[in-house]
Amino acid sequence: MVRVVVLGQGYVASIFASGLEKIKSGELGYYGVPLANELPVKVEDVEIVGSYDVDSSKVGRDLYEVVRLYDGNAPESLRSVVIRKGVHLGSLRNLPIQATGLDDEMTLSEAVERLVSEWKELKPDVFVNVCTTEAFVPFESREELEKAIAENRKERLTATQLYVYAAAKYAKEVGGAAFVNAIPTLIANDPVYVELARESNLVVFGDDGATGATPLTADILSHLAQRNRYVLDVAQFNIGGNQDFLALTDKERNKSKEFTKSSIVEDLLGYNAPHYIKPTGFLEPLDDKKFIAMHIEYISFNGAHDEIVITGRINDSPALAGLLVDLVRLGKIAVERREFGTVYDVNAFYMKNPGPREAKNIPRIIAHEKVRMWAGLKPRWL
Amino acid sequence: MVRVVVLGQGYVASIFASGLEKIKSGELGYYGVPLANELPVKVEDVEIVGSYDVDSSKVGRDLYEVVRLYDGNAPESLRSVVIRKGVHLGSLRNLPIQATGLDDEMTLSEAVERLVSEWKELKPDVFVNVCTTEAFVPFESREELEKAIAENRKERLTATQLYVYAAAKYAKEVGGAAFVNAIPTLIANDPVYVELARESNLVVFGDDGATGATPLTADILSHLAQRNRYVLDVAQFNIGGNQDFLALTDKERNKSKEFTKSSIVEDLLGYNAPHYIKPTGFLEPLDDKKFIAMHIEYISFNGAHDEIVITGRINDSPALAGLLVDLVRLGKIAVERREFGTVYDVNAFYMKNPGPREAKNIPRIIAHEKVRMWAGLKPRWL
Amino acid sequence: MVRVVVLGQGYVASIFASGLEKIKSGELGYYGVPLANELPVKVEDVEIVGSYDVDSSKVGRDLYEVVRLYDGNAPESLRSVVIRKGVHLGSLRNLPIQATGLDDEMTLSEAVERLVSEWKELKPDVFVNVCTTEAFVPFESREELEKAIAENRKERLTATQLYVYAAAKYAKEVGGAAFVNAIPTLIANDPVYVELARESNLVVFGDDGATGATPLTADILSHLAQRNRYVLDVAQFNIGGNQDFLALTDKERNKSKEFTKSSIVEDLLGYNAPHYIKPTGFLEPLDDKKFIAMHIEYISFNGAHDEIVITGRINDSPALAGLLVDLVRLGKIAVERREFGTVYDVNAFYMKNPGPREAKNIPRIIAHEKVRMWAGLKPRWL
Amino acid sequence: MVRVVVLGQGYVASIFASGLEKIKSGELGYYGVPLANELPVKVEDVEIVGSYDVDSSKVGRDLYEVVRLYDGNAPESLRSVVIRKGVHLGSLRNLPIQATGLDDEMTLSEAVERLVSEWKELKPDVFVNVCTTEAFVPFESREELEKAIAENRKERLTATQLYVYAAAKYAKEVGGAAFVNAIPTLIANDPVYVELARESNLVVFGDDGATGATPLTADILSHLAQRNRYVLDVAQFNIGGNQDFLALTDKERNKSKEFTKSSIVEDLLGYNAPHYIKPTGFLEPLDDKKFIAMHIEYISFNGAHDEIVITGRINDSPALAGLLVDLVRLGKIAVERREFGTVYDVNAFYMKNPGPREAKNIPRIIAHEKVRMWAGLKPRWL
Repeated sequence: MVRVVVLGQGYVASIFASGLEKIKSGELGYYGVPLANELPVKVEDVEIVGSYDVDSSKVGRDLYEVVRLYDGNAPESLRSVVIRKGVHLGSLRNLPIQATGLDDEMTLSEAVERLVSEWKELKPDVFVNVCTTEAFVPFESREELEKAIAENRKERLTATQLYVYAAAKYAKEVGGAAFVNAIPTLIANDPVYVELARESNLVVFGDDGATGATPLTADILSHLAQRNRYVLDVAQFNIGGNQDFLALTDKERNKSKEFTKSSIVEDLLGYNAPHYIKPTGFLEPLDDKKFIAMHIEYISFNGAHDEIVITGRINDSPALAGLLVDLVRLGKIAVERREFGTVYDVNAFYMKNPGPREAKNIPRIIAHEKVRMWAGLKPRWL
Repeated sequence: MVRVVVLGQGYVASIFASGLEKIKSGELGYYGVPLANELPVKVEDVEIVGSYDVDSSKVGRDLYEVVRLYDGNAPESLRSVVIRKGVHLGSLRNLPIQATGLDDEMTLSEAVERLVSEWKELKPDVFVNVCTTEAFVPFESREELEKAIAENRKERLTATQLYVYAAAKYAKEVGGAAFVNAIPTLIANDPVYVELARESNLVVFGDDGATGATPLTADILSHLAQRNRYVLDVAQFNIGGNQDFLALTDKERNKSKEFTKSSIVEDLLGYNAPHYIKPTGFLEPLDDKKFIAMHIEYISFNGAHDEIVITGRINDSPALAGLLVDLVRLGKIAVERREFGTVYDVNAFYMKNPGPREAKNIPRIIAHEKVRMWAGLKPRWL
Repeated sequence: MVRVVVLGQGYVASIFASGLEKIKSGELGYYGVPLANELPVKVEDVEIVGSYDVDSSKVGRDLYEVVRLYDGNAPESLRSVVIRKGVHLGSLRNLPIQATGLDDEMTLSEAVERLVSEWKELKPDVFVNVCTTEAFVPFESREELEKAIAENRKERLTATQLYVYAAAKYAKEVGGAAFVNAIPTLIANDPVYVELARESNLVVFGDDGATGATPLTADILSHLAQRNRYVLDVAQFNIGGNQDFLALTDKERNKSKEFTKSSIVEDLLGYNAPHYIKPTGFLEPLDDKKFIAMHIEYISFNGAHDEIVITGRINDSPALAGLLVDLVRLGKIAVERREFGTVYDVNAFYMKNPGPREAKNIPRIIAHEKVRMWAGLKPRWL
Repeated sequence: MVRVVVLGQGYVASIFASGLEKIKSGELGYYGVPLANELPVKVEDVEIVGSYDVDSSKVGRDLYEVVRLYDGNAPESLRSVVIRKGVHLGSLRNLPIQATGLDDEMTLSEAVERLVSEWKELKPDVFVNVCTTEAFVPFESREELEKAIAENRKERLTATQLYVYAAAKYAKEVGGAAFVNAIPTLIANDPVYVELARESNLVVFGDDGATGATPLTADILSHLAQRNRYVLDVAQFNIGGNQDFLALTDKERNKSKEFTKSSIVEDLLGYNAPHYIKPTGFLEPLDDKKFIAMHIEYISFNGAHDEIVITGRINDSPALAGLLVDLVRLGKIAVERREFGTVYDVNAFYMKNPGPREAKNIPRIIAHEKVRMWAGLKPRWL
């Protein structure tokens, strides 16, 4: 069994919970789960044992009631889990949500203790972090991180940064755990955290789940690179109506994207073609089904000038939720193999910003074969 | 040096000739040539030593005069080659072109003798076949093929089928040659021809150069397959204004596509998703720059329904011409290695319908790494 | 009240019936009905009193059972109408449907008598023709038409051509009726039929309901024309999965499109820009929701070269069904005003091929204002 | 003759000058000029007699040298005009341009005097304002405007606001002139300026030339409105590489768009469908040829859900430059008719934000017919 604790019971976590139950009940197939049921750890073995949130309208309610807000067909079997209070550390600032968190009631050190103690009861194998996108600043050193917690500097840490710290403490005590960081906050790309994970029997996968147009852009750029076409420019927009897009209209949060290596274009093409790749707007009626548009211009043989345009309507949360079904199982496998720290072969396929920091993007189609091999499966086409 | 004889001096062959000269003169970089100048055989080593056509307005003129019809910037250095008379065997039927061919003046056996004898003077290493799309019927056996030639059954063979036969004869006599079949007529997928090639010291690469939307579709389908998304349907149109599109409006020619394994969808997805993938129309002002449109619907996690649309303006001939710059060099390498018959590792990346017959399509992004390895280059991402 | 008889109880007729009932019950608003409820004849006044089909699996069943095949939410109130047997005259040839028709049992003259006699009981004000697209040949003269019927030449007439003849007979006897021809068979564009209508107290609206991409193309071309941009070419594809697309894969039917004035491009631009505007393929999973793609290139000021591409997913049948809600009411109004023959001011907005034959296409946005004025409504923007 | 003074010799003004000369020399037709040469005032009658800019690298150079920066085929005939120094009032703030202006050397009142005196020599009939998009604040009253000038409050006015003031003074003295405001600064929508114009024998056309995707969006929304389709949402992006896009990345300037009535959606649909309509990004290699993408979702009959997507590559400056060729001629006509103040019938077709303030947007296709009628031409389709 894979015991999972979810951090941030929003759209993605709710679709994850709902889809998982529907697969178990036989109502749905494995669509959208990259490795389907090929892994030795089965989809049916995954169990959500705990869920944390900081929206005061969610804390204390059962999972079914919350999931139902996002999926009209939520299964009743979700009733058994009750949403617990996590930490917010200002992560809901500027969003139309009433936040409540352990950090409102106690110091950061106390909050860490509380979480670790709850987890020792819940016994998760894997944590899945799907909090709202945060405005974060990476840490320079372990000392800086530990000092910020000790001094209760709530404005210095984000919820994610505290959760990973607590997860490391928990992993050290229980002998091993995995933390899947599906949001942009740098964890698998932050040497301080990777080092902390390695020393604490923690596996971290991250950062920023590879959904939306970015992985498709990656494969299309790889396609062009392999034909030695010279890319003149790339423009990519997204517009959506879920809370993640609303959060991104917040300037502070957007700025934190600066710490992200946006080197996907350079990694794949071998040169930094001019590009504009951004989530662009919030338009509520689109809800979770975002509209994407991408334009690529390039030079082909004999100086010919070509253009391609990709547009799409893509359900944002299911795309990520499907990846999580693999990631929690791969996390369990990594823990069993004691591959603590981070695992590039997993990150390269599943993450927009695959850690560790010095790692590069590779074509997703190749990354997929690599993660299969890492997981002990036969490659499909290699 | 790689000595090249071109069969069919139309748009593709003209862009190939023009671009090659411009690369040699330093006017252009290697854009659109997948392996750029990484191979031991250099782009600068490629030389067009002969060219055949059956358009009476082209035969007898020099290459510069013909290339200029397709590329206003044709280099003067092309003056040294004069277009020779090939065989047409009805291949220009229903096109607004006055055909003239050796087959109008002599029997098929005599035409073969004539070609072989000319080639023994021209000493090509590689033939590049870029004739107009033909209405062909594959041969059941070597006997059937040889009998048809012996009996001078001009309605039974296409120009390509006769050219390969002659090329095999030539290869046998001189010790080795390569034939790049860039059009849909089945050669590398026809066991009769592959066997003939193997016995005659001929390498055949084929069939149907992988340009246009198809390889991109292949990589996008691979992308979806790797995420286990369930493809509901695929629609793909092309509309263009060059002679190839005009030829495809001819019902007979289109029918010959029936012999093509259109299994790309099934090969890559693992099931035969309903699809409509066709060149659709001729619209003259589009000229060589075709308009493509593709629509794909699929099911993602938790039953979510996504759609992507790709549109593009793509120069048809340069895309194929750039591939030819690799293929003639790879042909030379294969001859040197004496890998007679056909070479799947080359075909898988460069051909729409990669021979041999029993071979399957694989993602192009992976095929690219394989051809690099076959050619002795380091893979880029594996 | 507007009493309506439907000819051809397929997708469009079923959505028409279903939507109408849902509007009456207050379940739906007037969306998709161009004139909403502004006309003196109210949407709630429209009543389907009869329906004809030739699919043996439909004839004799009640309307609810048939509508349910196309709309899962069909209202039970449709139970009261039973599908009657019409004429097929080969119209289902090559389609996977078992046809049954009055013409299998009696001569054409007898079938006309039978229909007129049934209609005198049903007392329709308006006929709506939404039969499957037919392979037709227009008539040269009234004599030719009447002779073909008298001589029982079943291969000479299509179902539509016979239905209009019968409707004219009925209208003459009862003093007035309207016939809405929503399919491509030329009726309002055929002087023989318009003359017959005029003499018989029949109003005909037609031909070919203006749905799908064509009216949008019309307005976009008008937009370009008004800025004096020079259109270089227009390519437009449709691919769908309903029976109408299946029927169009049939060469014979497609050929009948030749009689259509495809002069929309010339009418609106003032010159015949090269264009390729066609339904292109059948792809079953698309069902009634077709995929359209359109590409337009033009020259702007100072020789600048611009391009626009429009793609869409459009429900085919509701688009036409919504127009029918107006057309039956306008038909009733025309009969009341005794405007027998055909009415260009109505056709220009609602029809792809607006009759009479000598009439031209105008921008739909202007045609809309004209039909409002014809109907006695205030223009919206003029 | 129409004597024109241009304010802001950037991309648009340069294409305007270049295209005009090429039309005169017979090199180009009237493409992109909506009224072609139908007006009594001929295109050949338009003459650029003066040009102002504040880019220190342009002031003092001749028009040919500047136009050549934007159009490689600039005609030599442009040599006779020399760029004069205008006012900048901070309008180039945050742009990579060295500004120089009369306002650096003298008070605002003195600058107005200087301009009026120069214009009395140049004798323009029409001013064309194509300055860089400005961060402006409208004036509450004439007093406030005049006081700001008298007190030399350079931070209070934009270049445009000062230019119109000077143009009004000039018009009053010479008996009449027209001012075409092709940028977003509110002039024709500002009652203070319209009143000033009326009293000063000045015609103002404005505001913000209707180019790019907006007029197309307007006609497409009209198309949907006329079919009573219920628009759920509209998303529209633009990304370009010219200086106008660079300027829009500046937050301050963007904020000034707040004063714009973005009521196009509500004006045409009759309700305020949720929308996100914005220029979105700067991507230098796109240069003047911007990429647009638009997504519209709507409800059709029987509750059907449709979507359309429009993408395009559109040359930004020629689209506006072509409109200017009409606008200067219409300005001359308005002055001759003494229709001082502003003219809605002109603005409604040519402007994104048609003044006066209380006016609404109407479908462009109808606006076109109205401006034809205003200009004394026959409508094309009414």
